[in-house]
Amino acid sequence: MERLSEHACFGGTQGFYRHDSEVIGLPMKFGVYLPPQAAKGPVPVLVYLAGLTCTEETFAIKAHAQEHAARHGLMLVTPDTSPRGTGVAGADAAWDFGDGAGFYLDATQAPWAQRWRMATYVTLELQSIVAREFPADTARTGLFGHSMGGHGALTLALRNPGLYRSVSAIAPIAAPSQCPWGHKAFSGYLGDDRAAWAAHDATELVKSGAKAPPLLVDQGLADKFLAEQLHPHLFEEACRAAGQPLTLRRHEGCDHGYYFIQTVVGDHMAHHAKQLSA
Amino acid sequence: MERLSEHACFGGTQGFYRHDSEVIGLPMKFGVYLPPQAAKGPVPVLVYLAGLTCTEETFAIKAHAQEHAARHGLMLVTPDTSPRGTGVAGADAAWDFGDGAGFYLDATQAPWAQRWRMATYVTLELQSIVAREFPADTARTGLFGHSMGGHGALTLALRNPGLYRSVSAIAPIAAPSQCPWGHKAFSGYLGDDRAAWAAHDATELVKSGAKAPPLLVDQGLADKFLAEQLHPHLFEEACRAAGQPLTLRRHEGCDHGYYFIQTVVGDHMAHHAKQLSA
Repeated sequence: MERLSEHACFGGTQGFYRHDSEVIGLPMKFGVYLPPQAAKGPVPVLVYLAGLTCTEETFAIKAHAQEHAARHGLMLVTPDTSPRGTGVAGADAAWDFGDGAGFYLDATQAPWAQRWRMATYVTLELQSIVAREFPADTARTGLFGHSMGGHGALTLALRNPGLYRSVSAIAPIAAPSQCPWGHKAFSGYLGDDRAAWAAHDATELVKSGAKAPPLLVDQGLADKFLAEQLHPHLFEEACRAAGQPLTLRRHEGCDHGYYFIQTVVGDHMAHHAKQLSA
Repeated sequence: MERLSEHACFGGTQGFYRHDSEVIGLPMKFGVYLPPQAAKGPVPVLVYLAGLTCTEETFAIKAHAQEHAARHGLMLVTPDTSPRGTGVAGADAAWDFGDGAGFYLDATQAPWAQRWRMATYVTLELQSIVAREFPADTARTGLFGHSMGGHGALTLALRNPGLYRSVSAIAPIAAPSQCPWGHKAFSGYLGDDRAAWAAHDATELVKSGAKAPPLLVDQGLADKFLAEQLHPHLFEEACRAAGQPLTLRRHEGCDHGYYFIQTVVGDHMAHHAKQLSA
């Protein structure tokens, strides 16, 4: 693991790192915020999955979460949103597919299947590196994310019971089988078999009996992607029918960006801190 | 004034705007964070001056100040760091002179003197637009900044007694006549007359008797620009000799970037809130 930069921040350290990923077969970057409590021993880990076009730096710069992490004693881990520098033709052709748009799944279709393995990368390899290189109490790991990363947080938690002890999402793509972003990503990465799509769709997973810890989801009502892409009401209905605990909060006037995220991130950090210390 | 975007944030609104500047003769952009208290009446104004290469968006995105502004009921105003699109030959040749590097003074030398009038822009025109377009109690205006913007905050306050009721700086260029950034900017914008430089140098202004409200200055000790460019010790000596109240805090391990700024910005907001409400 190579250290790219480290910055003192609220008594802890915001760092950026690069390592050769075995799962993806290329170098991958990620960010870690170490709270001051990490100087004394292992701390719980909170992984954040970012949205389309973002990188490992986006959350660290824009979300204003470090102050809350320092107060709660949580390590923040921020992976990139896709493999980079793959040389795959067309990978940089669109902002919502390919580079910066890994959708936190393992692709099964050529030419994506070799590199686009973000599910295994996040749930296994990144987890293992963090456990090896940082003072991490990985038995207490939480997961959250925004938009595509909210989809990632919900689906990875529902697909890997017990791996994440706390889960939340901000403006997640909550029913990707039923929106244009999801159609494009799933048909490209997973092919045309709708049954394969359902296994990576939070709403369909809950319908088929998958369980997660009690969920917190925040959604802005002035979000320009709400009506066409996000569909939190479908996820809400599925959770209600299945008995999956969910607190879905709708916020007047709030949009899809990081000014909304910074407004609610403190509540998310408190949600994770409470469940990770339970 | 044209509204570019507005985003709900901590119960208030982070907006970005553009107007035709009479002082500069070109369109200028700026940001305003309106705290929730502004819905009920005029609120005090805190102007932030950013550093080299920054824009009106940098502080709004990276400094994590809106939550504090919402708590204290302060409006945040963030101008750009120079004129843009001037067509002046060489304006984009360097990162520390010309575009993004206005140094918050009125240039006297060709070809800069026509457009590079950031001192008059910030102290008069921007102040007037904010008073006209927003619920601003401009009789209670504070000023702070970072690096080049810290220089700007200190010098504009020292040169305009009574205009700013609270003043602070983070890692300011505190004695620009004695550092390479200052030499380059002052010789380019002001010419070779050292007397003209002293009128825009915080340390020299304090030496010659200029006064400001009690100052808060924060400086990281792992700041790579500290030894060559910033010289807070010279400003500290001048303040001590002149009886100018100054709290200069030095922070182990902290660098020149926004991870440091976000760590101390809450203290700066509290400093301004206290003095603006006094």
